[in-house]
Amino acid sequence: MRNLKLTVAYDGTEYVGWQRQAEGVSIQGLLEAALAPFEGQPVTVHGAGRTDAGVHALGQVASVRLTAAIEVSRLARALNAVLPVDVRIVSVEEESADFHARYSATGKTYEYRIVNAPFVSPFIHRYVWHVPYRLDLDAMRAAAELLRGHHDFAAFQSARAGVRSSERTITAIDWQPGSGSDTPIVLRISGDGFLRHMVRNIMGTLVEVGWGRWPAAAVTSILASRARSQAGTAAPPQGLILLAVMYHRGSKPA
Amino acid sequence: MRNLKLTVAYDGTEYVGWQRQAEGVSIQGLLEAALAPFEGQPVTVHGAGRTDAGVHALGQVASVRLTAAIEVSRLARALNAVLPVDVRIVSVEEESADFHARYSATGKTYEYRIVNAPFVSPFIHRYVWHVPYRLDLDAMRAAAELLRGHHDFAAFQSARAGVRSSERTITAIDWQPGSGSDTPIVLRISGDGFLRHMVRNIMGTLVEVGWGRWPAAAVTSILASRARSQAGTAAPPQGLILLAVMYHRGSKPA
Repeated sequence: MRNLKLTVAYDGTEYVGWQRQAEGVSIQGLLEAALAPFEGQPVTVHGAGRTDAGVHALGQVASVRLTAAIEVSRLARALNAVLPVDVRIVSVEEESADFHARYSATGKTYEYRIVNAPFVSPFIHRYVWHVPYRLDLDAMRAAAELLRGHHDFAAFQSARAGVRSSERTITAIDWQPGSGSDTPIVLRISGDGFLRHMVRNIMGTLVEVGWGRWPAAAVTSILASRARSQAGTAAPPQGLILLAVMYHRGSKPA
Repeated sequence: MRNLKLTVAYDGTEYVGWQRQAEGVSIQGLLEAALAPFEGQPVTVHGAGRTDAGVHALGQVASVRLTAAIEVSRLARALNAVLPVDVRIVSVEEESADFHARYSATGKTYEYRIVNAPFVSPFIHRYVWHVPYRLDLDAMRAAAELLRGHHDFAAFQSARAGVRSSERTITAIDWQPGSGSDTPIVLRISGDGFLRHMVRNIMGTLVEVGWGRWPAAAVTSILASRARSQAGTAAPPQGLILLAVMYHRGSKPA
């Protein structure tokens, strides 16, 4: 049986999120429905990250086992012909039998985008959080630096997610300064894994720092508290984009 | 009575176009409805360009006469608070009594955007024309150069538009090369005025050149024919954006 890696981009605005739900249209459900005719029976697609309703992806990764012999680039084109235009297959690749989009992942990169201006350009309003009051980006940068490295991020985890440990390592934090209504401030954050709502809870906290309610150093005591109640409210989903999922090299078949 | 200049950005996807219609929601209608409460009676908004259904604007300009004393920046904020998020007031400025968004305009700049790749990024599909077959951009550039300057553009005018003359001057043509599914090829075109569907008819013709159906030189004979039937089919509206409207300096009140 073949094991395929799908890289998927989507505008999450109209969807209930990655994961199949009792009601509403999910990205996973769309992909499974699009793939089933090639296999002649239902298939299960595993995603690297379970993006929430309204969260977007440029480089979500999914794995699926297929017997159908269709060539990968033809499969990509055929899937794009039947999927809605706001969900696109970027690529389909053959993978080794042990590859799993979620369990093989060694890290992820997310972006969170904020427009800090009186109004948001109509062309990007689906993909940003609009914060109309002035943010101190230097204070936000300083606060974010305190999150870099290995920590227990329990304070930034929403609800219980059934994970064994809330320790994670943030390996990279980069900022792009924004300007005006059409160029968002971008936080790019990479780590070996992210807890439920972790990036949104971090950004909600950084914005509290940015508009002066908390000093940057508050992040250290929030981390130490390990209490969700100490961090800021989750930033809204539409500013979040799953940019890329990382895997060890050499997982592809020879 | 005050005379105000409104600069307006909109995503035209959901609208019937700039102009009020018997059915459907127009940008003009939205602005008039948003302004009326400030004036306490119906107002008429004049737009610089009557963008078609699905066409976008970054810098549409409208003029409106008001007696209400509200300060311009407060008016901009108040309008943005009631308008849908895909229609934004970029600025409101005081103008001299003789200013008229349409009749005072001395030129306009449009952009037309094409994604020339197997698929289109979900984040820009509303704002581009997807042309999946390979385009020869050099041939398109050469063809576009033949349109620069003063010509009778009757061959690029859709239907009868009740205009006295179909002569216009194209003052600037610039291209940005695209790449992949998320960076469109952009044609930026400026002129002293544009006939109905003129930019879309030009782009439809350039794409015929780009995929090799016509040589670049065909544009010269199409122009000379003055016959709409000789030019290409209109490119779809969603790739077109009214970027800016030009006015003579010095029209503002002292």
